Amino acid sequence: MPQLSSDPSAPAPCAPGPDGSRLVALDWGTTSARAYLLDSAGTVLDTAPAGRGILAVTDGLTTDQERRAAFEEEFERMCGRWLEAHPSVPVLASGMVGSNQGWADVPYQRLPQDLGALAGALTEIPTRRGPVHVVPGLLADGVLPQVMRGEETQILGVLESAHGDTDTGERRGTLVVLPGTHTKWVRVEERRVLDFLTVMTGEVYGLVTRHSILGRLARRPDAPDLGAFDRGVRTSLGADPDGGILATLFSARTLPLTGRLAAEQVDDYVSGLMIGAEVASCVRGRLASGGSPGARPPEVLLCGEPELCRRYQRALHQLGVDAPVVGGDVVTHGLRSIALAAGLLDPPAKGTA
Amino acid sequence: MPQLSSDPSAPAPCAPGPDGSRLVALDWGTTSARAYLLDSAGTVLDTAPAGRGILAVTDGLTTDQERRAAFEEEFERMCGRWLEAHPSVPVLASGMVGSNQGWADVPYQRLPQDLGALAGALTEIPTRRGPVHVVPGLLADGVLPQVMRGEETQILGVLESAHGDTDTGERRGTLVVLPGTHTKWVRVEERRVLDFLTVMTGEVYGLVTRHSILGRLARRPDAPDLGAFDRGVRTSLGADPDGGILATLFSARTLPLTGRLAAEQVDDYVSGLMIGAEVASCVRGRLASGGSPGARPPEVLLCGEPELCRRYQRALHQLGVDAPVVGGDVVTHGLRSIALAAGLLDPPAKGTA
Repeated sequence: MPQLSSDPSAPAPCAPGPDGSRLVALDWGTTSARAYLLDSAGTVLDTAPAGRGILAVTDGLTTDQERRAAFEEEFERMCGRWLEAHPSVPVLASGMVGSNQGWADVPYQRLPQDLGALAGALTEIPTRRGPVHVVPGLLADGVLPQVMRGEETQILGVLESAHGDTDTGERRGTLVVLPGTHTKWVRVEERRVLDFLTVMTGEVYGLVTRHSILGRLARRPDAPDLGAFDRGVRTSLGADPDGGILATLFSARTLPLTGRLAAEQVDDYVSGLMIGAEVASCVRGRLASGGSPGARPPEVLLCGEPELCRRYQRALHQLGVDAPVVGGDVVTHGLRSIALAAGLLDPPAKGTA
Repeated sequence: MPQLSSDPSAPAPCAPGPDGSRLVALDWGTTSARAYLLDSAGTVLDTAPAGRGILAVTDGLTTDQERRAAFEEEFERMCGRWLEAHPSVPVLASGMVGSNQGWADVPYQRLPQDLGALAGALTEIPTRRGPVHVVPGLLADGVLPQVMRGEETQILGVLESAHGDTDTGERRGTLVVLPGTHTKWVRVEERRVLDFLTVMTGEVYGLVTRHSILGRLARRPDAPDLGAFDRGVRTSLGADPDGGILATLFSARTLPLTGRLAAEQVDDYVSGLMIGAEVASCVRGRLASGGSPGARPPEVLLCGEPELCRRYQRALHQLGVDAPVVGGDVVTHGLRSIALAAGLLDPPAKGTA
């Protein structure tokens, strides 16, 4: 294992590069890596060509030493020219790069976790360019343990994008929904993560539409059919719960078989069935529980791939829940916020750009 | 399309072959075909080598004529020598062979359906060996349509195996559970099918254990680990329902990740999670509904691949439901029963074998 330090003794913020660059921000996940050069206001000055995710970086390698070398090489490929030009700019990374399959196994932080305090729990990976600081993921223990790596930083960015840096303390709770391969439903109060749930809807959707018997009567549509999607959502919301989603799914075979669903509608209908079942169940569980009687229900914020967020938004709308989609570079917002709190970055002087 | 007749004008039972053979019984499904030579008591005198299922038979063929010829050829390969020796023995088939992807598209019978009346709804496919009589499948229309082909014959066999030919009329209802790729939960009173549900547990289990991220921390076990299976069932039965099975599934990743489930236990744990979720939901729905207040809950009978039935039995047991497994040749029992009712077969004379 690399020599790690989880005791970042508040390194002094570095002098900016001549173009105002102040932070290298890395979003390094399972299947992709993105690197950004930021100024102190969080503006993206430059973006590196997409890097390889941790699976591709470590593919075929067996020893820890080989893996470390491969990560450092990939890091150099993405960020080397920036650090050559501005050697003093600090580097902050989040995501699966900090997992036991990544560059270094960064211990999880346990819930409840104030996201503002993550800055005090960074791990340093030494490189010839200086340390790469890595944000820890979150762990909720229990019968069904929950883990995230990278999403904690996105959530911080979502909250800042939606609410600004200041927090009035009067705000009702927030349910941050991050649709994706493994959708996260995260209950937050102020910046404190109370609990979260991971739902494998995206991955199982891909498997059943590509590989199950449902594909046999399906045809790939030319464009998304949101009417078929809405019908799937309605079916899940109104369905007799017998057998759950694994039972309602079979209607994606029997409806085309009985001439009541077109072959081109099957995939969007399945998407509606699955997202509808997920949303109904999670809204019931997450919006109803945890609040004191008479309390306002939490606001719901969506963040992720726009087309997928739109589907979650439509499904939530059928349940009477309005959920805005938070766009923009939430990861860079989150990384900048953590860098500021960690003292890796000075706040921008007032009145200057 | 072949020339079909759904008006079997009660053909006279044929003279037995010299060895007492009276019926060729065919169980012809999607992935396999089995042919049996029966005497009038239903005893299996001979079995044909396994034939190809309808997918393999029609693979690569495009015209109806080609497909019909391929089915007749496969039929000849399985049963030709029997019909050569005993040209007058009638042939009765059930399963997907009677679907729009099979030999002939036999119309579904709608629910509620008395299984004893299926004999009056056979379709004949003409062949050079004489007609093949095909049992129709069942269709339940609705928002979530339900279909079966072949299971109706198995259910008849299950009921006869469990209750005998005679029916007292006093029996409480029966829930016949046929575990498999697509498990069927079938509510029956006497021989009348009231409704049924199809749950894709088996197929989705195969997909997620082979192709999802859950497989990455799993190792194939040398032998089934029923302790891990029971743990999965318990987890599903006790789980906060948030997100349903697609959420609880993720624990098959986080438990190994946090050192609380061995890599060899993942597959059996997932099996328990999925069967547990299915059983809990279906028992709640199927055992509670449909009965009048104070009525005895229906008996539950399991029939299918023995190892899989054992798992359903264990999961049902955790819910306090005892469900015997009905073994033996239920399809041949069902086909013999339909053949008797259709007049294709004489009942065995009393006192003779």
